[in-house]
Amino acid sequence: MTYRFPEKLQRTSRNLILEVVERGRSIPGFISFAMGNPAMETIPVELMRECVQEAFADDPMAVLQYGPMVGEKALIDWIRNRLVNQKGFPAEGNQIILLSGSGKGLGLVPRTLCGEGDEAYCDQFCFPNATASMMNVGAVPVGIPMDDEGMIPEALEAKAKSGKGTYVYLIPNFHNPMGTTISGRRRKELYEVASKYDLMIYEDDPYGEIRFAGEALPSFKSMDTDGRVIYAGSFSKTLSAGLRAGYLYAPDAVAKKLAAVKVADGQEPLLNQKIIAKCLAKMDYDEHLWSISQVYGRKCKLMAEGLQRYCSERCRILVPEGGMFVWVELPEDISVDDVSEASINAGVGVVKSAAFAVDPGCPGNALRLNFSALPDEQIAKGVEIFGRVTREFCDK
Amino acid sequence: MTYRFPEKLQRTSRNLILEVVERGRSIPGFISFAMGNPAMETIPVELMRECVQEAFADDPMAVLQYGPMVGEKALIDWIRNRLVNQKGFPAEGNQIILLSGSGKGLGLVPRTLCGEGDEAYCDQFCFPNATASMMNVGAVPVGIPMDDEGMIPEALEAKAKSGKGTYVYLIPNFHNPMGTTISGRRRKELYEVASKYDLMIYEDDPYGEIRFAGEALPSFKSMDTDGRVIYAGSFSKTLSAGLRAGYLYAPDAVAKKLAAVKVADGQEPLLNQKIIAKCLAKMDYDEHLWSISQVYGRKCKLMAEGLQRYCSERCRILVPEGGMFVWVELPEDISVDDVSEASINAGVGVVKSAAFAVDPGCPGNALRLNFSALPDEQIAKGVEIFGRVTREFCDK
Repeated sequence: MTYRFPEKLQRTSRNLILEVVERGRSIPGFISFAMGNPAMETIPVELMRECVQEAFADDPMAVLQYGPMVGEKALIDWIRNRLVNQKGFPAEGNQIILLSGSGKGLGLVPRTLCGEGDEAYCDQFCFPNATASMMNVGAVPVGIPMDDEGMIPEALEAKAKSGKGTYVYLIPNFHNPMGTTISGRRRKELYEVASKYDLMIYEDDPYGEIRFAGEALPSFKSMDTDGRVIYAGSFSKTLSAGLRAGYLYAPDAVAKKLAAVKVADGQEPLLNQKIIAKCLAKMDYDEHLWSISQVYGRKCKLMAEGLQRYCSERCRILVPEGGMFVWVELPEDISVDDVSEASINAGVGVVKSAAFAVDPGCPGNALRLNFSALPDEQIAKGVEIFGRVTREFCDK
Repeated sequence: MTYRFPEKLQRTSRNLILEVVERGRSIPGFISFAMGNPAMETIPVELMRECVQEAFADDPMAVLQYGPMVGEKALIDWIRNRLVNQKGFPAEGNQIILLSGSGKGLGLVPRTLCGEGDEAYCDQFCFPNATASMMNVGAVPVGIPMDDEGMIPEALEAKAKSGKGTYVYLIPNFHNPMGTTISGRRRKELYEVASKYDLMIYEDDPYGEIRFAGEALPSFKSMDTDGRVIYAGSFSKTLSAGLRAGYLYAPDAVAKKLAAVKVADGQEPLLNQKIIAKCLAKMDYDEHLWSISQVYGRKCKLMAEGLQRYCSERCRILVPEGGMFVWVELPEDISVDDVSEASINAGVGVVKSAAFAVDPGCPGNALRLNFSALPDEQIAKGVEIFGRVTREFCDK
C-alpha cells in the first residue's frame, strides 16, 4: 500500500515543547518550565468530587444516553449570562457553541472559515496548535510582527492587502508564549484593520480571567459592532483542564456554519459539561478567580524576581500581568539554542522561541518559562539554575 | 461584515432525520422510529455509577489536570487485546487512536486523507455524518450501488477508475440505514478492488457486536495484509452513547497522520475513558454483549413480525441479523414522500431513504425504521399504524 496524504499535510514541524519534556525524562530531578499546566492547588478537588457524583446521580440516563447535540443547557445559560451581563458582550446576534476544551476551536474555526490557499494571520510567535490547525486545512498561517503592545496593526495591514485573508488569530491577554497583553489602543486599531479588510477576528482568551496585576481591558468581542469576532473562552485554566470544557461565542451566521461542521464529528460528552455547570452553580466564580489569581501572581513574582536576580543583566525579562508565562529575550550575540541546551543539561527545561515561530526562518532569540505548573520551591531553584546558565553565556 | 465561507461548505443539505423528530414534537403520543438511540435497558447503569465514582476517586488530579494526549492507557490496552486476540486483527503495524465517540473519526479520516476535489466512496445510502464530513473538507462523496450483499464491487471499480479516490467508507455489519451485512465473498472482492486502485478502507463497525442472528463474518481489518484498513469501533451502542468512547485501529503511517491532525484539536476528556475502562475491567463484556443482543433481537423480531403482518404485501421488508434498523422498500409506483408524510401525520416517525441518499437525484423509495430506542409496546403499536398506512397507499 502506498500511502498518499494530501499536499496540505506534507509540512510537518517538530514539537519542540514535547521534545523538552522527553529530554527531561532521562534527567534526574528535572525541573520543567516547559509545559503550561494550571497550578494543581487552584483546582477545587472536593467540590468537583461532589459535582461528579451529582451530575451522574441527578439523571444517569441523561449522561449515559445520547443527549442534545448543542450540549448542556445550564452551562450555555451560565456562560451567556456572564458574557453579556458581566463582560459587556453583544447580547443579540451571537450564539454559544460548547466545545470539549476551547482548544477544539483551533481546529473548528479554520475548518469552517478557510479553503486551501487562504491566509490566516497570527502573531509571529504563536501557540503551535493554532497554526498547525490552519495548515491542516491547507490555509497559510502568516506571522505578523509584534511589540510589547501585541500585534502591530500596520504590519497586519501590510499582509492583509493580499486579499487572501480570512481571520486574525489573537490571544489578547497574557499571550502564549510571550505573556503580552494587547493595549486598549491597539485593540481598536487591530479591529479597524480587520474591518477594512473584512477579516474575522478569533479572540482566544483562555488566560484572561487570571489577572494578578494591572486593569482588565475591553475584549474585542465587547467592541464587536460588525459581528466579526469569534470569542473563545475556557474553564481549563480556572476549574479543570482535564474535564475539557470550553466554548465559542460567535455571530449567528458563523455559529451556524461552525455547528454544521462540528455536528458531523458527532456529539461531545455531556457528563463533563454537567460537572462544570454544577460546579459553577455551587461556587462564587469571581471569588474563585480572585483567589487563584493570587496563587498565579505569587508564582509569577517568585519567578520574575528570581530571574531578575540571577539572570545576566543583558537578558530582557517580560513579566506578564496574568496568565502563565514569562518570556526571556537573550542578547542578539547569544545563541538561544546553546542557552536552552545548556539549561536542559543543567536540569531546567525551557522552550526556545523557535517552538512558536510561525516563520521557521525567523526563530527569534528568546525563551518561554511557565510558572504555573510547579511548586514554589522548584520555581525558586529552577530560575537560579537557569539564571546562572544565562550568565555563563552572556557575561563571559 | 460580509461573511464568506469556503466553496466546500456551500453545499448544505437538510437533516431529514431531525426534521422528523421536530415534527413529532407537536404530535401528541408520537412514536418515533426515526432516531438511532440504543435501548435504555441495555445500559449498565448501576455498574456505571460505581465506575464514575471510582474513576474520580482513584486519582482526582488524573482526571482534572491535563493528561496524556493519547488518552487512557488501560482502555487502549483492553481494546488492543480484544482486537488482536479475539478478533484476529493484525497485531503489528497498527495503532489505536482513542476518540470521544467513533463518530469523531468520520471527520478525522477525511481531514487526514483528502484534499479538495478528492473522491471518497460510500454506499449509495449512507450515514449522513459520514458524507457531510467528506464534503466539509472539499472531498466528493461518490455513492456506489448496493444490493442485499452490500456494496457492489464492480460498481466500486467503475468509479475508482477515475484515479481520484482516497478511501471507501463501509459499515460492513448491519448497515445504517439498510441493515445489510456485507457477505464474506463480497468483503474479499471489495478488498481486492481497493488494492487494485490503492484505496484505503474505512471500516466503521459500531453495530458489529450486536448480532442476534446468523454467524459473525471476518472483518476487513482481519484480512488486511496490505495495511489499508482503518477500523472504527465504539462502545456507544454496547455500554453508553453519552460517555463518548470510540476508537480507530489504523496502520502506523496513517495513525501517525491522524494523531497529528487530532493533536491540534486539543486533548479529549480522560474521565470518560477511565469510566469505560473500569466498566470493561469489572464486567464480562462478551456475556454483556450476548445479553444485550437478546434484547435487540427481541425488539427486531417484534418489529419485523409486526411489519410482515400489517404492511402491504407489496412492501419489501429487510430484516437485519443485528444492529438497530429495519429497511422497508415500497413498490415503485408508490411515493415514499406520501407514505412517510402520512405515517408521521398518523403519529409514527419514519425516515425516508432520501435522508441517506448520497446522490440527491437518486433518493430511493424506502424507509428506515429503528427498533432499539422504544419500549416493546410502542414498537408493536407503531408498526401496526405504519403498516396500515402502507396498505392505504399500496393496496387501494
